[in-house]
Amino acid sequence: MSAQDETPGAGAEGNASYGHKAFKRSKSHFADRVTADGRDGWPVEAGRYRLVVSRACPWASRALVSRRLLGLEDALSLGVTDPIQDDRSWRFTLDPDDRDPVLGIRYLSEAYDARESRYPGGVSVPALVDVPSGELVTNDYQQLTLDFATQWTALHREGAPDLYPEPLRDEIDVVMDGIYRDVNNGVYRAGFAPDQKAYEAAYHDVFHRLEVTSERLATRRYLVGDTITEADIRFFTTLVRFDAVYHGHFKCNRRKLTEDPVLWAYARDLFQTPGFGDTVDFDHIKRHYYQVHSGINPTRVVPLGPDLGGWLTPHRREELGGRPFGDGTPPGPVPAGEEVPVTGRP
Amino acid sequence: MSAQDETPGAGAEGNASYGHKAFKRSKSHFADRVTADGRDGWPVEAGRYRLVVSRACPWASRALVSRRLLGLEDALSLGVTDPIQDDRSWRFTLDPDDRDPVLGIRYLSEAYDARESRYPGGVSVPALVDVPSGELVTNDYQQLTLDFATQWTALHREGAPDLYPEPLRDEIDVVMDGIYRDVNNGVYRAGFAPDQKAYEAAYHDVFHRLEVTSERLATRRYLVGDTITEADIRFFTTLVRFDAVYHGHFKCNRRKLTEDPVLWAYARDLFQTPGFGDTVDFDHIKRHYYQVHSGINPTRVVPLGPDLGGWLTPHRREELGGRPFGDGTPPGPVPAGEEVPVTGRP
Repeated sequence: MSAQDETPGAGAEGNASYGHKAFKRSKSHFADRVTADGRDGWPVEAGRYRLVVSRACPWASRALVSRRLLGLEDALSLGVTDPIQDDRSWRFTLDPDDRDPVLGIRYLSEAYDARESRYPGGVSVPALVDVPSGELVTNDYQQLTLDFATQWTALHREGAPDLYPEPLRDEIDVVMDGIYRDVNNGVYRAGFAPDQKAYEAAYHDVFHRLEVTSERLATRRYLVGDTITEADIRFFTTLVRFDAVYHGHFKCNRRKLTEDPVLWAYARDLFQTPGFGDTVDFDHIKRHYYQVHSGINPTRVVPLGPDLGGWLTPHRREELGGRPFGDGTPPGPVPAGEEVPVTGRP
Repeated sequence: MSAQDETPGAGAEGNASYGHKAFKRSKSHFADRVTADGRDGWPVEAGRYRLVVSRACPWASRALVSRRLLGLEDALSLGVTDPIQDDRSWRFTLDPDDRDPVLGIRYLSEAYDARESRYPGGVSVPALVDVPSGELVTNDYQQLTLDFATQWTALHREGAPDLYPEPLRDEIDVVMDGIYRDVNNGVYRAGFAPDQKAYEAAYHDVFHRLEVTSERLATRRYLVGDTITEADIRFFTTLVRFDAVYHGHFKCNRRKLTEDPVLWAYARDLFQTPGFGDTVDFDHIKRHYYQVHSGINPTRVVPLGPDLGGWLTPHRREELGGRPFGDGTPPGPVPAGEEVPVTGRP
């Protein structure tokens, strides 16, 4: 999939490169895979790895949703960083003593350094860290969730859905590729555009793809097939941030998500599905974007809006049919200690 | 009216004061009045004065609307500045040879200097200039439109409405005072807030007043009485800019104007009334705010959105009754040469 050629290496969030050159994601430097057969030296194993995320970051949030839907919470522990990086990047200042309680580190960069001394690149989330050695295994977010779906199967919960079903993979890849280029990354190209021309090109890509996808979703509940797949996860993580940050901060303001009845109902449907909305922290999202990107928001003031109450309103998408979890079942409640604080909820 | 204590002196637009101190409008330095009796030395006289505006500026736009509704176009000529000031402030770069064809000046500051040599303050619009001497008469926008309504009556068109009817003045003043403080100027206090606390106070003022006013307008077509008054003009000039600039650029983003059914219908009703929408140039508005305020938009990129098509859709406010022009009539078409270019229209 061509989108995999561009993954967020040098600080996908916060350290994102903007200025006089067009915004471009750099390639992931660490692309080892954790697989069932352990071919890269990292076998799937319960309790061995720690997933480090920021709830602000859309790329990391894919992994948050995927882990919940597949029921990997017991097998793969979770570290959540402060939404605001400092000059040493992502940090564990939400934890007691400002240290991740399992890895014992204060900065995610320490896991990068443990893997490769004096690594010159940026530090990004999501990051999968080997707990025994403290080393980063991978920050390749494009591959990570596909591996959760297809390599970590022995550790899936009972009733876990198939998020990347074999017969639909070609179609899922095509849909995800367009959404990646034009929407997931398109909003960043708009927001970090160095000039009017680059901004306008990105803006048109964003709204063209949203319109095409809105049409697709007018008559079908999910993007591919009749169940939730990886494609829905990847679309969701951008949609849920759209009105809160991309509309104003990134100037993607042809219309709000709430002004597209189809996409708004689709996004609410997913938000209200266990495993999606219960991973979302709007407080982290808003503070991260508005406070870290001082190049486009020098005052660092965080907007109080938009009103988020609508996320919990009825969406009536059940009328389109679909079987959210296929032959499986919804995930159980969020594990204790992982609940999103009230400040981050609608 | 206490709002008159704060008028935009030092560059109400563009030179507006923001930084480490709370945003504050400075007092108009030039507050002479053009009156029927000429008590300040400036009698109402057809052809004597020139109104200089920016179509970007909400304070100047009051005068644009008022002049149209009252039919003062023949008596009072109009100069329109470039929406983008340079370091010498408002300039006539839209005119041939970059000079106002009547005043013969390149910068509005020349009229200020003609009135008071080495005037140290800012240059603001609207400005009323005495054509024979080239001197600025007044930049007191709070008084200007009240004088159009009450002092310039001898030059009003036939069928001109009474925009400041004597029996309703107390009520109009109270309504305008709240709207000035919380909405007209409130959006600026939000956008130029030096810190989170000042921003939040302003944001709450803006939306509190919008909500109160939305309730008022749910059952009555206009703000005071059953006809268009000065109060409607002053509310309109902020509402018409709301989604285009205040929502994103000034972070007034609890909801868009289009998301408040009452205010959105009210604003469309006025927009579609001759004399209101035909003075509005969305291109000037957007370029001015996003390109001049580089302190809050350092990239100077101008958003392409929002979609403006809705401004021309049916509003059904006629069902509330009301007599837009009272015993009068709507104004005629926009004079030749004053039409808003297609680029600025919905």
